Amino acid sequence: MTMEPVEVLVCSTCRAGMPTDMEGPRPGAQLAEALLAKDWPAHVTVKTTECLSNCDSGCSIAVRGGADRWTYVYGNFTGAEDAALAHEGLVKYAGTEDGLVPWRERPVHFRKNCIARIPPLRLPE
Amino acid sequence: MTMEPVEVLVCSTCRAGMPTDMEGPRPGAQLAEALLAKDWPAHVTVKTTECLSNCDSGCSIAVRGGADRWTYVYGNFTGAEDAALAHEGLVKYAGTEDGLVPWRERPVHFRKNCIARIPPLRLPE
Repeated sequence: MTMEPVEVLVCSTCRAGMPTDMEGPRPGAQLAEALLAKDWPAHVTVKTTECLSNCDSGCSIAVRGGADRWTYVYGNFTGAEDAALAHEGLVKYAGTEDGLVPWRERPVHFRKNCIARIPPLRLPE
Repeated sequence: MTMEPVEVLVCSTCRAGMPTDMEGPRPGAQLAEALLAKDWPAHVTVKTTECLSNCDSGCSIAVRGGADRWTYVYGNFTGAEDAALAHEGLVKYAGTEDGLVPWRERPVHFRKNCIARIPPLRLPE
């Protein structure tokens, strides 16, 4: 079975609620860097993106993939230290055809911090 | 200029924080019905959809349109009484090529209740 490509979009501008004048890399950028360094299935691409407008619940990651998968936005990642759990949940997503990972298989963080989801472009009837 | 089609996706299962055992149509369904009855530009389609997983801040509407527009999720609509303001903001979105309505032109509700946004499929470089 060939899987449709999946895009992981990591908001690299996110400050995760920290002061706007702080120096050094932002938590979002650090999370993105840690995710880029992970091993991913061949059909998954990790990209950084500008603000996902989920600043009250950042850091944020959006994931989508093809016309038949739901798009998800997950929030409340703290930074690079959450890369492993984010990777786990995102790889599970990438292993589905419709983006729907069974509830009990989702990492707890994914269950509790789903910000929104958007139906597939090819809406199921 | 021909505009790419726009889809307005209204979560019709939303109870907007009301008890789960209440009878009668749900706020989300009432909002959807009111929006379906509005006049829209020819390239806009309004559809109902199941849960957008934004239940803490529902009722919710997602809007998207083509590979070059940002997708937005807006929340905290109370029901049919917010159809006029939702219509106003969504028509403005539909009038853009990239989904980015200038901040000052967005209805106040849209400014304050953006739940998340997702970059265009064709990411700008």
